[in-house]
Amino acid sequence: MNELRDQLQHKIDTKTKPLGALGQLEDLAMQIGLWQETLTPELKDPSMLIFAGDHGIAEAGVSAYPKDVTWQMVMNFMGGGAAINVFCRLNGLSLEVVDAGVDHDFPEDLPIVHAKVARGTKNILEEPAMTREQLERAMAKGAELVRERVATGCNTLGFGEMGIGNTSAAALLMHKYLELPLEQCVGAGTGLKGEALERKLDLLERASKLHGGKDARAILQQFGGLEIAMMTGAILEAHRLRVLVLVDGFIATSALLAAWKMKADVLEACVFSHCSDESGHRRMLDALGVTPVLNLHMRLGEGSGAAVAFPVIRAAVAFLDEMSSFDAAGVSSND
Amino acid sequence: MNELRDQLQHKIDTKTKPLGALGQLEDLAMQIGLWQETLTPELKDPSMLIFAGDHGIAEAGVSAYPKDVTWQMVMNFMGGGAAINVFCRLNGLSLEVVDAGVDHDFPEDLPIVHAKVARGTKNILEEPAMTREQLERAMAKGAELVRERVATGCNTLGFGEMGIGNTSAAALLMHKYLELPLEQCVGAGTGLKGEALERKLDLLERASKLHGGKDARAILQQFGGLEIAMMTGAILEAHRLRVLVLVDGFIATSALLAAWKMKADVLEACVFSHCSDESGHRRMLDALGVTPVLNLHMRLGEGSGAAVAFPVIRAAVAFLDEMSSFDAAGVSSND
Repeated sequence: MNELRDQLQHKIDTKTKPLGALGQLEDLAMQIGLWQETLTPELKDPSMLIFAGDHGIAEAGVSAYPKDVTWQMVMNFMGGGAAINVFCRLNGLSLEVVDAGVDHDFPEDLPIVHAKVARGTKNILEEPAMTREQLERAMAKGAELVRERVATGCNTLGFGEMGIGNTSAAALLMHKYLELPLEQCVGAGTGLKGEALERKLDLLERASKLHGGKDARAILQQFGGLEIAMMTGAILEAHRLRVLVLVDGFIATSALLAAWKMKADVLEACVFSHCSDESGHRRMLDALGVTPVLNLHMRLGEGSGAAVAFPVIRAAVAFLDEMSSFDAAGVSSND
Repeated sequence: MNELRDQLQHKIDTKTKPLGALGQLEDLAMQIGLWQETLTPELKDPSMLIFAGDHGIAEAGVSAYPKDVTWQMVMNFMGGGAAINVFCRLNGLSLEVVDAGVDHDFPEDLPIVHAKVARGTKNILEEPAMTREQLERAMAKGAELVRERVATGCNTLGFGEMGIGNTSAAALLMHKYLELPLEQCVGAGTGLKGEALERKLDLLERASKLHGGKDARAILQQFGGLEIAMMTGAILEAHRLRVLVLVDGFIATSALLAAWKMKADVLEACVFSHCSDESGHRRMLDALGVTPVLNLHMRLGEGSGAAVAFPVIRAAVAFLDEMSSFDAAGVSSND
């Protein structure tokens, strides 16, 4: 592996540019080359999977939007009018939507992945979000979807999510996994302010004290969403199959935290596409010691940050593959 | 104009996303809509012009690379192997190279724009970089090139540069235009360190004291490069013709500073694509009060930052044009 690292560094350094002049693009090229174990990495059939799920706690008023928005947004994805549709079309990512646990009956012929584990999670103010069996089913389905995409030639996957109430789940996962004070983990979500935000924090304090699981799986079962658990299973399988994972924002990174607690190596596979404006996300990235590609104050979810960042990641691979060396171009180097 | 601003804000706010959730993309959409005076902006025939020129002061040893690299890199651009070639191809920008003042005889049939004003600038340690007539000729040519591109349907232009020694010119322009201490303006360029960097600062101190011009044109004439002056003329004309200008890094922003000192309104036209790792660039952006799109620690020039940022800017226009509204998508809003 160190030999490959040296070879990649040599390839990067002999391109017709001052040493280090492509900054973070050089770091990305190195990471992706190492991860794909090649001097000529490729991003094949880049794809976005959006996992959708509902949250029992949404009924308690932790979001600025009603719970119905989850299934309505799934329909918006299918109509092609959501932000993630626009960004995937623009940047050449295919897009698939997965019903991981939406509290709605979708038409059977709707071209989504019908993988409903339950009609939303339970209200974590009363009981664990899901059963252990539901957790395992969700994670296994996420893994299966990754295997299917890899079988048809994909080696680059972004994961997005939709679920009213899921910043609450993500904040609790962050609190438990990173052992940070809950008030550092809870943010505005889709737009809470003032008293409503205080109320969200109070409710999550209560939920946090109700469940005492310590290991990564128990925490995910007690607080996670079905869409988050499915994403965690997908990330772990993507890592196992050496797929490049485009990590989106706050919710997606909470799924990654769960995967990371189960298998610390998983970070090798991950490009952190952006830093969300959801207040806890920067702290998550800092705790992982990773640098995001974009800092655009986005906080939309759906995989939107990953889709917007994708061309920058593609640029890193392209310069490594396509730029001339000083020798080949007949340009004088400075050594 | 305020009516259009309200209409744009309404259009942005009724898209199927939480208010403000697309962060800086929303600011870009607003800016571009206002600039193009429409609710449905478009980036037409996006094009990159690279201005190349040599610098007399390069002979004094202010760069880590020999002066011949300027013309060699022009040949590399024509061979398609430079970073800017890769990024323009990848992101759908057309690319043209302009000999603004390279100290080299290019073959007449080389498909560049042959607009050599002189074989490089004079050594500013001895005399002004160019004559007033050369300045006017360079600026007029830049304007002419913009008019030609607009005539064939382009409304979005990035400007790049190539010129060994041009961080010295840019640092002096920054020093004079922003009235900041020279040591805050001078940086490593292509990779100077330690004594070599000290020497660059000493030489530029000397040059700074030698020429006393106060107005924007005199300063550009005394310290600017021919490629910088041509870019300044291009920016001013792009502004006059309501073209969107993608501003690249340190050198390109020095050309913009000159344009801004001649016509402060020019900022309306400008998207600041990235913050360069060249140390003075952040201060330039702060002085202008603008926010760059990318922060990737790139410091390559050529227009590379603008070309890498272009898909993000395109995403801002696309969400405004293509996303559904809450009403159209049948999604419940939160009001």
